Amino acid sequence: MAITQILMAKPNVLIPLTVLSERFAAAKSTISEDLVVVKEGFQLSRQGYIETMPGALGGVRYIPDLDGAEVGQFLSELAARLSVKERILAGGYLYMTDLLFDPAVLRPLGLIFAKIFRSQKLDAVVTIETKGIPLALVTAEALGVPMIIIRHGNKVTEGTSVNINFVSGSSQRIQTMSLSRRALEPGRRVLILDDFMKAGGTAIGMIQLMKEFEAHVVGVGMLVESALGHFPKLVEEYQALLKLTELDVSGRVVVTPVVAFAQ
Amino acid sequence: MAITQILMAKPNVLIPLTVLSERFAAAKSTISEDLVVVKEGFQLSRQGYIETMPGALGGVRYIPDLDGAEVGQFLSELAARLSVKERILAGGYLYMTDLLFDPAVLRPLGLIFAKIFRSQKLDAVVTIETKGIPLALVTAEALGVPMIIIRHGNKVTEGTSVNINFVSGSSQRIQTMSLSRRALEPGRRVLILDDFMKAGGTAIGMIQLMKEFEAHVVGVGMLVESALGHFPKLVEEYQALLKLTELDVSGRVVVTPVVAFAQ
Repeated sequence: MAITQILMAKPNVLIPLTVLSERFAAAKSTISEDLVVVKEGFQLSRQGYIETMPGALGGVRYIPDLDGAEVGQFLSELAARLSVKERILAGGYLYMTDLLFDPAVLRPLGLIFAKIFRSQKLDAVVTIETKGIPLALVTAEALGVPMIIIRHGNKVTEGTSVNINFVSGSSQRIQTMSLSRRALEPGRRVLILDDFMKAGGTAIGMIQLMKEFEAHVVGVGMLVESALGHFPKLVEEYQALLKLTELDVSGRVVVTPVVAFAQ
Repeated sequence: MAITQILMAKPNVLIPLTVLSERFAAAKSTISEDLVVVKEGFQLSRQGYIETMPGALGGVRYIPDLDGAEVGQFLSELAARLSVKERILAGGYLYMTDLLFDPAVLRPLGLIFAKIFRSQKLDAVVTIETKGIPLALVTAEALGVPMIIIRHGNKVTEGTSVNINFVSGSSQRIQTMSLSRRALEPGRRVLILDDFMKAGGTAIGMIQLMKEFEAHVVGVGMLVESALGHFPKLVEEYQALLKLTELDVSGRVVVTPVVAFAQ
């Protein structure tokens, strides 16, 4: 019981068996037997799983995960919560901020993105301020990697930075994005994540900025992609969880789960 | 075992005994006995505790927490990681971004702020973009409440908003902060949180903005307060975790834990 608690309190952290053995004043063989029971518990609870690594540098770690059935149900419910006319704002925008900043909504979203991209062996999750930050953080935590936030314009408290200009595909306005030289070492494998994509101009900008850091972009994830308007998508490969298919200022809005995801 | 896992996967969420009873096809009395063992496990693991509520609307929930001894050790280590000359930036700033965006650092920080402010029965954690956002999110999650992010300037995708001007006490520059009318209902109890405080002008601005929403500010938390320069603190009551006491561009920087916290 206490072993489960220690593992779950530090998701993705490899805990050596010797640490558990000392902590509970038990032989390593006893700890190993306990871990079998912990593993069975996770098969029953479906709240993730544990990985054990043998050898001197080995140990055990907890990988948080969301059951496939729960993913489908959660995304359907989220799509329904977004498909209400009270969320329609002037200018044809959809109000999503309350959900994007709610830990109870974010935690499952992080687990879903982690489920999709874990096999890519990521080193970091990258996003651009502001609304995608919480989403990137929960995903980074579920994957056990740091988050990197690209800023708008240049910030004095970040030291030397790399700036690039980009055109948000839908607004056609030139903007600047900036990342501190210190933020990312060369050669890292990164996932780009954002809350909303229209044409993908911002995502293209982030991909270009990552090239300046010699990073490998191994995935692009979006919470919602818009199917409205006639914006050819600038990004070829991305994975959205939800799609905005209708938004009419007279009061109709439809968001649907992107079912292709459920594996 | 599986009960612990389900509780820990949904921190702060009250789970009715009937749900557990159905999930595991066990009598409520059996579940209650199991919960006694779960409780003992947490006394041993010190990774938080469970609360049980009796009655028809009752149930059980997991409250994440960090042991007092771990708090002290974590803050000392964090202070040491900040007190290195490589972090000194031109203009006398301290580079903290890597730590502020790292889930492994953020999670304990969220638990520490939650430990300090949980008794205040908060409805939300409020911050201002950008660097305090991850800190506010982990604290909101540890407390089981939503996060609210005040924006710089007015954003078109947020609907009607309340804007106020504020003077950042150290820069003496007038800026605007903005919050959507939808973001907060009147009468809510909020915690204001930010990563760094010099004179507190930004915090004062946030407190004033909260008045516009008829919110009760029941706490102000800061990761680092600066003791540099001669800025009389504008905010009377706040709780910082760390204090920046020296920063010399020639290469000396000292950050110390604010020991008054350890209770």
